[in-house]
Amino acid sequence: MTKETDESIMVPAAVIKRLPKYHRYLEELLNEGREKISSQQLGEIVGVSAPQLRQDLNYFGNFGQQGYGYNVKKLYNSLAEVMGIQQKSNMVLVGVGNIGQALVNSRDFEKRGFYLSAIFDTNPKLIGLEINGLVVKDVVELKDYIAENDINIGVITVPASSAQEVANQMIKAGIKGIWNFSPVDLKTPPNIQVENEHLTEGLLRLSFKVKEE
Amino acid sequence: MTKETDESIMVPAAVIKRLPKYHRYLEELLNEGREKISSQQLGEIVGVSAPQLRQDLNYFGNFGQQGYGYNVKKLYNSLAEVMGIQQKSNMVLVGVGNIGQALVNSRDFEKRGFYLSAIFDTNPKLIGLEINGLVVKDVVELKDYIAENDINIGVITVPASSAQEVANQMIKAGIKGIWNFSPVDLKTPPNIQVENEHLTEGLLRLSFKVKEE
Repeated sequence: MTKETDESIMVPAAVIKRLPKYHRYLEELLNEGREKISSQQLGEIVGVSAPQLRQDLNYFGNFGQQGYGYNVKKLYNSLAEVMGIQQKSNMVLVGVGNIGQALVNSRDFEKRGFYLSAIFDTNPKLIGLEINGLVVKDVVELKDYIAENDINIGVITVPASSAQEVANQMIKAGIKGIWNFSPVDLKTPPNIQVENEHLTEGLLRLSFKVKEE
Repeated sequence: MTKETDESIMVPAAVIKRLPKYHRYLEELLNEGREKISSQQLGEIVGVSAPQLRQDLNYFGNFGQQGYGYNVKKLYNSLAEVMGIQQKSNMVLVGVGNIGQALVNSRDFEKRGFYLSAIFDTNPKLIGLEINGLVVKDVVELKDYIAENDINIGVITVPASSAQEVANQMIKAGIKGIWNFSPVDLKTPPNIQVENEHLTEGLLRLSFKVKEE
């Protein structure tokens, strides 16, 4: 029932933002052995109205069946495809500090098809160390490594002062997406996608909301 | 020139979202020794239009002076006050795994007035360990600790399966805000503020945008 994916389709940012959440809840339902679910029920779980849910999913194809609801597994797989996580993504990470090490150690994202291929740092004390099965490489090797391997995404966990330089090198080497944990807004060409995780900004927003309450 | 803070003022979420960014750029300008800046210039740096910037800041008071622009230090301090970061905030953290340890070790947020008072875990191998000057406490002490100390914010870095239980305990003990790193949407009463850092969702959004490009 899925309609052909229309490459020219425009999807609102608010919808894109909700997709990972739908995907996460569907995974939980799958793990619980659930086979089908109504838009009403799924909406309740996720916290959006049923019409909103149907409208969101309609951007990507006609997933539901009238009077039956959604097939959990089919919807899960379709969303994964829409989000580009059925094909495996290879990533490099630069900056093996606190947050970098936490990401290398946890690798929660591997369950979703994102693999860390290599990790880099400038610190001679870290280069050569093995962290959770990956040996820290010298950042001078970054560009060649990206160019010679099939790397889609670069993770930046360096201090603010060197984040732009690392981003520049990644982009020159052909990376298409940057997952940025440095507290700077990177300057990048329009064809490069950036997702920022500015953690302290989240804390500041929280503090503001607590104060308002 | 700042008008009295009106406690009943409604501020759009989009504006709240931009405040930490304004604050961060103003800090950089302060560090560079900059004394004043026009709304035009500040807007350019931050990436919003000058009218947008003036409109955003007007929610909180008349910061600028016609024909002069903003006094960097005054604006920085006013924003800090608005965001509730002039008063010190004390936090507890529960879950000393990968991300938890990274937060305890980096403590970037201390520069902004957020202090970790205590850290907790359920794992007997971790309880009693010292991490960056803080000794890991048993989570059974959590409620009493929060009740007996002046704690505003709880940081949750436990696995998804125990996040709601930790949140419940924090709320019962009187915490007003939760900074949640667990990949679950916590169920909380309306007077409790939650800021989610669902890291893998950011990566999924990035993957989707890269695929769309």
